[in-house]
Amino acid sequence: MNILEIIAKKRDKKELTKEEIHYFIDGYTNGQVEDYQAAALIMAIYLNGMNDREITDLTLEMANSGEVLDLSKITNSQEIIVDKHSTGGVGDKVSIILCPLIASMGIKVAKMSGRGLGFTGGTVDKLESIPGYKTNIEMETFIENVKNIGVSMISQTLNLAPADKKIYALRNSISCVESIPLIASSIMSKKIASGADKIVLDVTVGSGAFMKTIEDARKLARQMIRIGKLTNRETVCVLTNMDEPLGYSVGNNLEVIEAIEFLKGNMPEDLKQVVLELANNIMKLYGKNTDDDVNKKNILENIKNGKAYRKFVEMVKIQGGDISVIEDISKFHKSSVIKEVIATKSGYVQSINAEEIGRMACSLGAGRVKKTDDIDNTVGLIIKTKVGEQIKEGDILAEIHANDLGKAEEIEKQLLQTIVINKNPKKEIKTILEIMV
Amino acid sequence: MNILEIIAKKRDKKELTKEEIHYFIDGYTNGQVEDYQAAALIMAIYLNGMNDREITDLTLEMANSGEVLDLSKITNSQEIIVDKHSTGGVGDKVSIILCPLIASMGIKVAKMSGRGLGFTGGTVDKLESIPGYKTNIEMETFIENVKNIGVSMISQTLNLAPADKKIYALRNSISCVESIPLIASSIMSKKIASGADKIVLDVTVGSGAFMKTIEDARKLARQMIRIGKLTNRETVCVLTNMDEPLGYSVGNNLEVIEAIEFLKGNMPEDLKQVVLELANNIMKLYGKNTDDDVNKKNILENIKNGKAYRKFVEMVKIQGGDISVIEDISKFHKSSVIKEVIATKSGYVQSINAEEIGRMACSLGAGRVKKTDDIDNTVGLIIKTKVGEQIKEGDILAEIHANDLGKAEEIEKQLLQTIVINKNPKKEIKTILEIMV
Repeated sequence: MNILEIIAKKRDKKELTKEEIHYFIDGYTNGQVEDYQAAALIMAIYLNGMNDREITDLTLEMANSGEVLDLSKITNSQEIIVDKHSTGGVGDKVSIILCPLIASMGIKVAKMSGRGLGFTGGTVDKLESIPGYKTNIEMETFIENVKNIGVSMISQTLNLAPADKKIYALRNSISCVESIPLIASSIMSKKIASGADKIVLDVTVGSGAFMKTIEDARKLARQMIRIGKLTNRETVCVLTNMDEPLGYSVGNNLEVIEAIEFLKGNMPEDLKQVVLELANNIMKLYGKNTDDDVNKKNILENIKNGKAYRKFVEMVKIQGGDISVIEDISKFHKSSVIKEVIATKSGYVQSINAEEIGRMACSLGAGRVKKTDDIDNTVGLIIKTKVGEQIKEGDILAEIHANDLGKAEEIEKQLLQTIVINKNPKKEIKTILEIMV
Repeated sequence: MNILEIIAKKRDKKELTKEEIHYFIDGYTNGQVEDYQAAALIMAIYLNGMNDREITDLTLEMANSGEVLDLSKITNSQEIIVDKHSTGGVGDKVSIILCPLIASMGIKVAKMSGRGLGFTGGTVDKLESIPGYKTNIEMETFIENVKNIGVSMISQTLNLAPADKKIYALRNSISCVESIPLIASSIMSKKIASGADKIVLDVTVGSGAFMKTIEDARKLARQMIRIGKLTNRETVCVLTNMDEPLGYSVGNNLEVIEAIEFLKGNMPEDLKQVVLELANNIMKLYGKNTDDDVNKKNILENIKNGKAYRKFVEMVKIQGGDISVIEDISKFHKSSVIKEVIATKSGYVQSINAEEIGRMACSLGAGRVKKTDDIDNTVGLIIKTKVGEQIKEGDILAEIHANDLGKAEEIEKQLLQTIVINKNPKKEIKTILEIMV
């Protein structure tokens, strides 16, 4: 077996064997297969595709290319590990709410998250805007924390699926990102390496998501569900809208504050729907209850009675975070400039392009353009409206949190373009689009 | 413009503009485009193709990526430069015969050739088996020699079409060799960079050639003719058979000796047909005569009257070669072992697989497996029969020239397999398959 034969087979639209996929992933991880050979093979896969068996083998080989997290220590042998993942969005603070909420229902949550890159934020960056919160802790402490309080949220410290990391970076530099088999195997390999038995996926759709159309999102979801079946990891995909930002806040401190408010019962409707639907599906996979209405009622009850909020405070504390900031959100650092954006005309909000909002937050300093960029926790946007709402001239449309007045004024102009208002009534956006199993 | 957009366009089967092709070739030559990006683009071109306009622009950009030979100094303004190229074969000593022969007809020949790699030999290696012959000379001397005696044959010393060299090497390591657009543009770019106005191409077909079938050879020929039209370089393709080796000898000294014998009038029939047909087409493109029969008669006359042979001796002398060896071929160095291969049965020769013969000569030391390998001028094979000939048990089928008895015995066994003999009468192989203009 050699890499030239493997490239030639996929070039000629032939099926690769499990052994050939292993040879490629193993060789690429250890440097025996060159970047340019991997690039040629990835382009051939992009253009000629892979069948379910090949994609599943690719997923498993990438999952096994580095360390694989063994979570059996934190569960008794009966318990299963359900993991949640989002394909990314703007204003997406769902994990920060969902993990303590689920833990408050008695389901253990060991969550490793990533940092943001480009116009979408990352859960780890958001958590780090809580003073003292340590995301980079030893595996033993991580597992100990889950055992003690039922939840821990950290950054990916293990060398999980290094082949996926290498291939993902390569795809970015050879225009091979938008490939369903490659996206699906990338996501699933990371989940499998993180020790998940069952997986709930939030597949976002729209301007601020990776999948711009419902058709592409369905294709990706179907592919991941098929990989789940073939790897014996039951997978549910919740397709959610990402045409406008989720909730109202975009930016690190601002999103954590919105998450805290949510856990205290102050729930933006779209965010509430996403959290409820994901939590419900996690509970069903875990085997807690199969009735949607009962689940959602119980989940809301844990918000109401403060259990979810207290679990969050407990988690922040055990991770070294300053809980006085959680208990008094006015203690969060603020940006030097807070500028209100005022509606210059009356009408109905037609659209609030989530990608554009994400890019604005990023350009204020909330995100990274390059991996090595520093981020500013204090900056971001609070959008004060939603698509479909009626607006009067003079209403406050948004708040810009910036550390540079010129930058704030620049973003103000952009926001007045991005929040499109005209006289035609407009329906609000449906948040939960489909649930695929 | 950036390379990611260019890769994405070809990935999506779109036509690349002249500027985009320039950006790629220029960037790859100077190192701004990475190997892995070029690899992804080359695979996309392999799979999604290019139209004639794109292929022609690719050819011209590669031709202009380095030095371009200006041969106007050796011709008066009326004269044109006709170049000849073969897509490669086994036992192919055509250039060594053709160049002095053509020069003896009064057409100036400035020929730069390559070295062999793999199972096919290279003209430069063959010429260097003449003691003293310098293939690596200054451009001025090269042009001076052509001016003085009408012919010079050297190695590619100039930095001709470096983009082609880089892409060719890359294609080899990513299984993208067998692509008609890429092969055609590679060949044509080198010819254009070598200063050719008109081009005669010997497109070989069969087991010992790059194109295994007549259909593929026709496709390649058609593509090169179209590039020729679009670059204003009239191009003729002569499709010749390479199922069995050309002539009888394979190996450096042995092929030079066969070429000398040919120029003295001792012409193997297949080799004679190829030389006559290529010479005829060069003369027609040059404008000497348009009548095939008259041309061929004149060419044979120059063999008969010794003019072609004398031109060869003159060329060897001006290049520093020892002409006493030419005039007495017994002075050529000989291998230490010369082993005859005797037929073990009677019948008709069914096939003599040229690629296998090439590999045997290579393994005796006549060729290179890696670019840096040394070659042994003395070793090789003289096949004493042709497909279709009747053989009696005990006849001499071949002579093995080796410097290692064990190796010779090993090759003997292989040869008895490769020269397939059975009772069924077999027609001899047609040498000239088609002429395409």
